[in-house]
Amino acid sequence: MSGMYEDLKGPEIPGLLGEDSILLLPIGAIEQHGPHLPLSVDFIIAEETARAVLDQCRDDVDIWLLPTLPISKSNEHDWSAGTISLSNETLMATLDDIGRSVAETPARKLVFLNGHGGNTTMLATALREIRVKYSLQTFLMHPSLPPAYGGESNVDELGMGIHGGRDETSVFMYLRPEQVDLAKAERRIPEKLAENTHVKFGGSVSFGWLSNDFHDDGYIGDPTGASRELGEKLFLSAVDSLCEAMREIRDFSFGR
Amino acid sequence: MSGMYEDLKGPEIPGLLGEDSILLLPIGAIEQHGPHLPLSVDFIIAEETARAVLDQCRDDVDIWLLPTLPISKSNEHDWSAGTISLSNETLMATLDDIGRSVAETPARKLVFLNGHGGNTTMLATALREIRVKYSLQTFLMHPSLPPAYGGESNVDELGMGIHGGRDETSVFMYLRPEQVDLAKAERRIPEKLAENTHVKFGGSVSFGWLSNDFHDDGYIGDPTGASRELGEKLFLSAVDSLCEAMREIRDFSFGR
Amino acid sequence: MSGMYEDLKGPEIPGLLGEDSILLLPIGAIEQHGPHLPLSVDFIIAEETARAVLDQCRDDVDIWLLPTLPISKSNEHDWSAGTISLSNETLMATLDDIGRSVAETPARKLVFLNGHGGNTTMLATALREIRVKYSLQTFLMHPSLPPAYGGESNVDELGMGIHGGRDETSVFMYLRPEQVDLAKAERRIPEKLAENTHVKFGGSVSFGWLSNDFHDDGYIGDPTGASRELGEKLFLSAVDSLCEAMREIRDFSFGR
Amino acid sequence: MSGMYEDLKGPEIPGLLGEDSILLLPIGAIEQHGPHLPLSVDFIIAEETARAVLDQCRDDVDIWLLPTLPISKSNEHDWSAGTISLSNETLMATLDDIGRSVAETPARKLVFLNGHGGNTTMLATALREIRVKYSLQTFLMHPSLPPAYGGESNVDELGMGIHGGRDETSVFMYLRPEQVDLAKAERRIPEKLAENTHVKFGGSVSFGWLSNDFHDDGYIGDPTGASRELGEKLFLSAVDSLCEAMREIRDFSFGR
Amino acid sequence: MSGMYEDLKGPEIPGLLGEDSILLLPIGAIEQHGPHLPLSVDFIIAEETARAVLDQCRDDVDIWLLPTLPISKSNEHDWSAGTISLSNETLMATLDDIGRSVAETPARKLVFLNGHGGNTTMLATALREIRVKYSLQTFLMHPSLPPAYGGESNVDELGMGIHGGRDETSVFMYLRPEQVDLAKAERRIPEKLAENTHVKFGGSVSFGWLSNDFHDDGYIGDPTGASRELGEKLFLSAVDSLCEAMREIRDFSFGR
Amino acid sequence: MSGMYEDLKGPEIPGLLGEDSILLLPIGAIEQHGPHLPLSVDFIIAEETARAVLDQCRDDVDIWLLPTLPISKSNEHDWSAGTISLSNETLMATLDDIGRSVAETPARKLVFLNGHGGNTTMLATALREIRVKYSLQTFLMHPSLPPAYGGESNVDELGMGIHGGRDETSVFMYLRPEQVDLAKAERRIPEKLAENTHVKFGGSVSFGWLSNDFHDDGYIGDPTGASRELGEKLFLSAVDSLCEAMREIRDFSFGR
Repeated sequence: MSGMYEDLKGPEIPGLLGEDSILLLPIGAIEQHGPHLPLSVDFIIAEETARAVLDQCRDDVDIWLLPTLPISKSNEHDWSAGTISLSNETLMATLDDIGRSVAETPARKLVFLNGHGGNTTMLATALREIRVKYSLQTFLMHPSLPPAYGGESNVDELGMGIHGGRDETSVFMYLRPEQVDLAKAERRIPEKLAENTHVKFGGSVSFGWLSNDFHDDGYIGDPTGASRELGEKLFLSAVDSLCEAMREIRDFSFGR
Repeated sequence: MSGMYEDLKGPEIPGLLGEDSILLLPIGAIEQHGPHLPLSVDFIIAEETARAVLDQCRDDVDIWLLPTLPISKSNEHDWSAGTISLSNETLMATLDDIGRSVAETPARKLVFLNGHGGNTTMLATALREIRVKYSLQTFLMHPSLPPAYGGESNVDELGMGIHGGRDETSVFMYLRPEQVDLAKAERRIPEKLAENTHVKFGGSVSFGWLSNDFHDDGYIGDPTGASRELGEKLFLSAVDSLCEAMREIRDFSFGR
Repeated sequence: MSGMYEDLKGPEIPGLLGEDSILLLPIGAIEQHGPHLPLSVDFIIAEETARAVLDQCRDDVDIWLLPTLPISKSNEHDWSAGTISLSNETLMATLDDIGRSVAETPARKLVFLNGHGGNTTMLATALREIRVKYSLQTFLMHPSLPPAYGGESNVDELGMGIHGGRDETSVFMYLRPEQVDLAKAERRIPEKLAENTHVKFGGSVSFGWLSNDFHDDGYIGDPTGASRELGEKLFLSAVDSLCEAMREIRDFSFGR
Repeated sequence: MSGMYEDLKGPEIPGLLGEDSILLLPIGAIEQHGPHLPLSVDFIIAEETARAVLDQCRDDVDIWLLPTLPISKSNEHDWSAGTISLSNETLMATLDDIGRSVAETPARKLVFLNGHGGNTTMLATALREIRVKYSLQTFLMHPSLPPAYGGESNVDELGMGIHGGRDETSVFMYLRPEQVDLAKAERRIPEKLAENTHVKFGGSVSFGWLSNDFHDDGYIGDPTGASRELGEKLFLSAVDSLCEAMREIRDFSFGR
Repeated sequence: MSGMYEDLKGPEIPGLLGEDSILLLPIGAIEQHGPHLPLSVDFIIAEETARAVLDQCRDDVDIWLLPTLPISKSNEHDWSAGTISLSNETLMATLDDIGRSVAETPARKLVFLNGHGGNTTMLATALREIRVKYSLQTFLMHPSLPPAYGGESNVDELGMGIHGGRDETSVFMYLRPEQVDLAKAERRIPEKLAENTHVKFGGSVSFGWLSNDFHDDGYIGDPTGASRELGEKLFLSAVDSLCEAMREIRDFSFGR
Repeated sequence: MSGMYEDLKGPEIPGLLGEDSILLLPIGAIEQHGPHLPLSVDFIIAEETARAVLDQCRDDVDIWLLPTLPISKSNEHDWSAGTISLSNETLMATLDDIGRSVAETPARKLVFLNGHGGNTTMLATALREIRVKYSLQTFLMHPSLPPAYGGESNVDELGMGIHGGRDETSVFMYLRPEQVDLAKAERRIPEKLAENTHVKFGGSVSFGWLSNDFHDDGYIGDPTGASRELGEKLFLSAVDSLCEAMREIRDFSFGR
């Protein structure tokens, strides 16, 4: 029965949603991704991934896809005209409003599917806030987990392919091949940072950074090795993995 | 040159946008619209109207379409599970963030295309706030102007067809015919209110109301007379009129 | 029994107010009105209109007049030293506080009588917020409805007499003749704007503006034709009309 | 040249106000004052005192009287229906807005004349905030200094005549004799509290209290000894003292 | 049974705390105190005083000492690099959070022991807010009451020894003798201010000031006469007096 | 030259701090840790670790230790009376205030040493906010990295020893042996959760949880195997590792 949340009619909701229903909110961003990628990258990846997850596992998980939030917090890219960014306060308030609204439905599980690494800490904070205030079960997943939060990162990029790098560029090439201009891409790896043991992306010490702290070009990684084939592989494998996670969410309870 | 804002690449923006560029932000809502219409009505109408305006007048107006805000302020429908609503504060903060971000681009004109009457007063407030804080020229247009703000309203509905009524239902039938269940629709006109001279929709005295203040069904109007043909006529005429307005916005200056 | 709210003694309130009592809050502003009018115009007009309404219809409507809020949101005039302006947030918080306090009394109806067009959208927003949060019935009226919200406007001024123009100047001459310096007034009509079909005061497209966007003098209209006689006529007719509206408010119910 | 601020015309302000001008803001409250006094007491006392100060010392001090804020923070009386109270946040925001607006004029001195003891700590906080943010010189005076802030209090009332007690009732009898119902007044002194050395009104230890913490009647003091004659004496002596203070403010500088 | 709050284990709390338990929160500051004193003065004095009070009266008062808040509102010293200051909003929010948390325990009495005069008005405001919102009994005490709130001040310093002056320096010499550099101290008295009757520290008219409004050195008073002996006397006498106050708080009730 | 920040005198700061100075802020919490540990655990561990880091590496890193924030965000433990918790908004505001204050000193590097896992996402968010607003270099380290952020976790506890478990209990036994009551500790592992691949502590999918979601006792882990010896080993190894990280921070630059 699951599908697009927005297509539901008001009076149907008490009958069609139940406590096992999972509401899935894709979260994008509109922000610079260097000269080779458009502003839409995180928005498109979040939305396309969510639709693929819905298609692939709707038969055994009761998923309802909320409309993608197109804009989120991107102030590490505010230096680049064109980026559209919510403040931390606005993003948190938006998530709180959504949590409060969802809690009025029969569904008890809300999942954020986050396309933009810059949101991760706020979304993780919101998981608890919404659980405390509205008693929902809340979850956060990523098409690809940022290295800073335990995700694997690519050795060729020294684990630094975090914004517009090889993997993200590849996935976007798979989804929107005509919108990638690989000829403009160069290797933009903060080599010195990669030598650190603690203070680096994915290291034990986090640090504050803007996307132009390392280079004026504002992307971080090496997209030159990107390909549509790699993108396809990454995308499909992410969808598989997220569907597996969706089934764990379906079966999740605090066991009390 | 105009088109979808999200498809721009960061470094292109200073060259492709200029002070005559108009950024167009469609604003939708996810809220109950009675038993005959889905939650998406305002979202779909705002987005489809904006795309049609872009298509029709991009040759002579430099329009860039921002991604549609799917969720906005709908607390008059919060009583109906399924409605997803931002608070006034969150909506105002979102608009402020967008205004601040847009002001970093070369564009100087920002237009809200509002699909949901419940937002009108906040959006109108934001026009001034963004002008004061960020010096943009700001505009607010509607696919169909709400009667409460000077729009014409339908005599058969006694001027009360304001939510899920004949015209909105017709337009949605034109855009998504398979999603309308006209068999569930009935006449839901607050007859007593219509007798007032001052205190009514579109009267000289505004009043606070929720969509279930008049009837449990939560829609206000008479959708029984809706048709796809009427919807087509209304939609195309709205697009014509908005394109005309877009040209006025293009030529707009404070004359100093 | 009705009269000045502030003259009530605390323990009398449960006995003297009831669910049909209407609390009337005049809202003024302290803001520049050009060289011919003092800062007090909106404050005085709101207060004098409210007192006249009380006097004229207290026999058949149970009205209690709250003390006039002297200062409200006037940031379109902040460029002019002397204007005293609340922010949007402060004004909304003030109205929320008043709504919460009023809801503790037996009265169920709260009316804003707004002397300053710059407040209209915020007050209209507050109507719903207070209804949602405190279950009051809420209403907004104007001594003279701004053209942007459906009011008629004067042909000689091309519908542009919106701040310190003929009608407002005339009404103030009636109320405080010694404080008007008509010799300083000139015609200040944004002629180019008036030629628009959509983007103009009272047009289908609203726009953000400051009072000095059109002319350094900061008033908009043509006060040269103002007269005390016209002011008297406008004032008395407004009071008649507002009393009629007050009776509709007295009889108002959502009919459920 | 001094007088009512609201009567100034915008373009006159740069010429009529100067760095020695003092803007005087009376601050009232609308709150229960027991069965013998109306809600308006603090509003009327603040406004009448301010007008008397203006009249008495305008010849040698350049004072401009701002319109009285009628409503302020009275949540110690929220239990009593009829009280209208701003929150702490709203009051602070209002004062901030006023400070910001005043700082745009040539005047450099802003004085709060506070009629309601419940505001004192917030107003004192605002003195510094406005000085830090807007570089104004800021001052706070009281028609009668609350005992908790060093004011003398009446021995017969054991220093506990802080709300609707002998002195306040007397002053109000002088200003609005017809509105006082002394027959309803009784002695309402928290005798036990008065025995404390530290924890009492005006003691070295402040404490949080509501006006019905001591007695359901909600006034604190002994108004039975009030008289118009005492009120006149207190009022005139307060005005003398405040005029003396106004001259100190006129001559005030940080001496740098 | 009383002692350090932080040493309690969660499950013990319902048994060990009761409605007569008093939670004592010392509040410090990290702010410039001139060239003769370190940033820690208010922090150390608040903490040491609180510990001495606990030691001296824990036998007959059930006191639990909360961990000292090291940082509070010090924006009068923001001009001096090194000062660390919370905004008014942050301090109020912190106190609100603490009040809400304390109200979940069986204890009903919360005492602020304030080491920094710049906090006094905010803490006094919080007394009422916490009482209104959480129904706690709330109290505010000072190691030495600021003159502006009724404390006695030293004649040699013309009542102006309010920041880094003789008494504070002496007390700190008693507590941390090795950290005082008296050789750097000079007389820094605003003599002109002291001549005022109303507008001065401890006068009937409060005023907004920064610590460098009077002198670049940023301390106000005459520390040259400070001594460890005087400090010991002042400290011990303050502790005696606060213990006396603690017993009044123990016995405090609103008598209803 | 480094040491305790609070012991600095105001005028010394421009000379003693420089752009290579690192300000280290320990952040604790006051929250239930089960029946075997006191409320102070995170506070003590943060403070003791920070002091040990200062002692061990002050010779080659210019570290200044700020006073420990004793209270932070602990709303996952709000169900347990005694926990004292700041809201997300208050914690973020506190960190913003500190960032703004630190930016006024010559130091350019600010490090959070976080003793409480419940703060991690907010502190990580603050890293960027402070960098964007105040241009500081900002870092976040943990005495022991939470598994949810890439830290290793103990196999015997199935990676679930996250609150009051073996390692934390051991470290606290090393620091405050007399305050641990190991006899009250039992194994409290959410076995079912540990079987998940994605949705678990340290898994690819984060989830919102309260400390009593799994068991009424509110601790998560198996403290029965804790020992002072293990605690010593863990503590000393953490200090070594953090000193190594401190040297990376000392040498850190964005390489531009």
